[in-house]
Amino acid sequence: MPGSIKDKVAIMGVGYTKFGELWDKSQEDLLVEAGYEAFDDAGIEPKDVQAIWVGVFYYFTGLSGCTAVEPLKLFGRPATRVENFCASGMDAFRNACFAVASGVYDIVLACGVEKLMDSGSRGLPGLKDFGHPVYGNASAPAMFALAATRAFHKYEWTKEDLAKVAVKNHYNGAAHPKAHFRREVKIEEVLSAPMIAAPLGRYDCCAMSDGAAALILTRPEIAKQYKHKDDYVLVKGNGLAVETVMPFYKPSFDYLGFPATQKAAQEAYKQAGVKDPRKEISCAEVHDCFTITELLNYEDLGFCKKGEGAELIREGVTAIDGELPVNPSGGLKCFGHPIGASGCRMLVEITKQLQGRADGRQVKDPVLGLAHNLGGPASVASVTILGRT
Amino acid sequence: MPGSIKDKVAIMGVGYTKFGELWDKSQEDLLVEAGYEAFDDAGIEPKDVQAIWVGVFYYFTGLSGCTAVEPLKLFGRPATRVENFCASGMDAFRNACFAVASGVYDIVLACGVEKLMDSGSRGLPGLKDFGHPVYGNASAPAMFALAATRAFHKYEWTKEDLAKVAVKNHYNGAAHPKAHFRREVKIEEVLSAPMIAAPLGRYDCCAMSDGAAALILTRPEIAKQYKHKDDYVLVKGNGLAVETVMPFYKPSFDYLGFPATQKAAQEAYKQAGVKDPRKEISCAEVHDCFTITELLNYEDLGFCKKGEGAELIREGVTAIDGELPVNPSGGLKCFGHPIGASGCRMLVEITKQLQGRADGRQVKDPVLGLAHNLGGPASVASVTILGRT
Repeated sequence: MPGSIKDKVAIMGVGYTKFGELWDKSQEDLLVEAGYEAFDDAGIEPKDVQAIWVGVFYYFTGLSGCTAVEPLKLFGRPATRVENFCASGMDAFRNACFAVASGVYDIVLACGVEKLMDSGSRGLPGLKDFGHPVYGNASAPAMFALAATRAFHKYEWTKEDLAKVAVKNHYNGAAHPKAHFRREVKIEEVLSAPMIAAPLGRYDCCAMSDGAAALILTRPEIAKQYKHKDDYVLVKGNGLAVETVMPFYKPSFDYLGFPATQKAAQEAYKQAGVKDPRKEISCAEVHDCFTITELLNYEDLGFCKKGEGAELIREGVTAIDGELPVNPSGGLKCFGHPIGASGCRMLVEITKQLQGRADGRQVKDPVLGLAHNLGGPASVASVTILGRT
Repeated sequence: MPGSIKDKVAIMGVGYTKFGELWDKSQEDLLVEAGYEAFDDAGIEPKDVQAIWVGVFYYFTGLSGCTAVEPLKLFGRPATRVENFCASGMDAFRNACFAVASGVYDIVLACGVEKLMDSGSRGLPGLKDFGHPVYGNASAPAMFALAATRAFHKYEWTKEDLAKVAVKNHYNGAAHPKAHFRREVKIEEVLSAPMIAAPLGRYDCCAMSDGAAALILTRPEIAKQYKHKDDYVLVKGNGLAVETVMPFYKPSFDYLGFPATQKAAQEAYKQAGVKDPRKEISCAEVHDCFTITELLNYEDLGFCKKGEGAELIREGVTAIDGELPVNPSGGLKCFGHPIGASGCRMLVEITKQLQGRADGRQVKDPVLGLAHNLGGPASVASVTILGRT
């Protein structure tokens, strides 16, 4: 049986860029901005960083572990690129945690970055050019639309239920200075938006964004000697799971939840000692690539039973002032989703919530926070639980 | 100061495919072949594997951490893709070592795979399409040719010195059943081969190959309970270093050695407690992407002083029956260089040497073995030292 990462790693500083269409900034610019904000937040000098992990999905703009060292001016250090589809950033963080927990490094940088707006602009392939060699590829909206259609049929969920997720996440993101879309949307606006892949309209889908996020990790006894000595954040549990490639294409798939998320969550909860997520998790950043995904995530993460996801959004349970606020940042929908950056961005957000530093979107007195990515599409999931000291 | 991985991780089983132009096998086929050979060698069932790391450079054939789970039928496990140019395989191994050393997993799979022959064949970019967004790109032969030209001028090395490296590595590889090129070459043949980038001819350059390699890692106390209980191999030290991107383009670069290798070697030697590599290292697999690289590696790895690399090949020090055999497998030159696979393949080879299982190419009574990758080009290097229990 696998062991646990619980309380072996501390987050001693965080940083992130504004997300958005950042045409005037390169991947390197974004990495430097997020990285140096994290160095400053941790109260360390760049030279204190002993190793680097960077999550980035696309290679096409030339960014790898080794090309990340140059803009950060961390010459001579080991630097590793981790790629795991939409979980790339959180998996970079996970590998950095193992390295710290092994005792080989004391202070490391885990970061994620992506320039989606530039994808394809240098004559190189963009998202549209990808496909599994055996299964080929449908677009992500087309696949998740099948999940929505199935949930509408099976549970009698409606487009209004989905729209409420978009309204909630835009409400939250409008209060966040670094979100891609800083505006609220009305339910009528969501329902009348152009269709992308029926029944998913424009506001049911996250957009393409650029951005970067960074975390400084260490062991708890070292965190006590630095700036956040009284409010560093602890890693309580982590699960990463791959269930199958392209579940949407498998005859056994019921479209109503993602086994990779279920498995990753079970592992993370076991490590963190969480028995009742609905009661014990104070706030969560979940992978709302589509509004339907957020509702199914509620179920896969154990916030409610299967088929009850829509009730949580209808009853306001996951609103910023609800019992279990989900995506207080605005989520992928409103904050943005630069693929490699998202996992780290969620962990930055949960860290700030736990430290009481989430100005304008602070959840009341959180104890445990959860971050979740789903990628591949829906092949791989990562769940991380953070807690106060 | 970073700590050490020494004696925290054991190699309990290894496997690899034949390298070559494997048009009739997919990446997935190769991964399964190497992986299942390693499971069998370790005396474990596939289900005993708790987590997977896969080193692969190109994404273009669709292989990532999560797509590796499916052919291996290791559903539900975490799987991570690590990319670090030519050091991708050894960095996958490094991250797997940290996870084992952290105590989170007991038994894991570290593997590397690459299908270079298919690169570009699906209408996707090949090597020729890559370039750094700032520095652009010259071809690898063109860059390493500058190093050869400089060494010829500065040290009065000759094309014959380079040719001796090719002759040695082909002599070794001819004895290896899994090498890409199983034939010896004569020095006249090397000297009269067509020029690729002067002064590097065809036999000064490694070829394009397909292949995969796999290692099963655990902690030493667990290795004692399995098949290789008496001859498992220990990780004694590991260093990964990035010095700068594209050193060939930097005014300060002297062309006569690679700072990333020097730094990675220093770290690995420090962890392993190696003071005099020439005396203490029993055999080495080094990154001979070009014959000139092998000679400069001798110096960067501390096997001799700067400027003395050619003397080692002239005097037979690095021959299979020499004082410090280098590339007993045939090296990248003769064994092949499927990018993501090479680092793991070298570690498989060193493991077999230390266990006395290197039939037909066995080095006499080795105690410590070294594996080395250089990539990026020349931006990143990884050095791992393995030892007998």
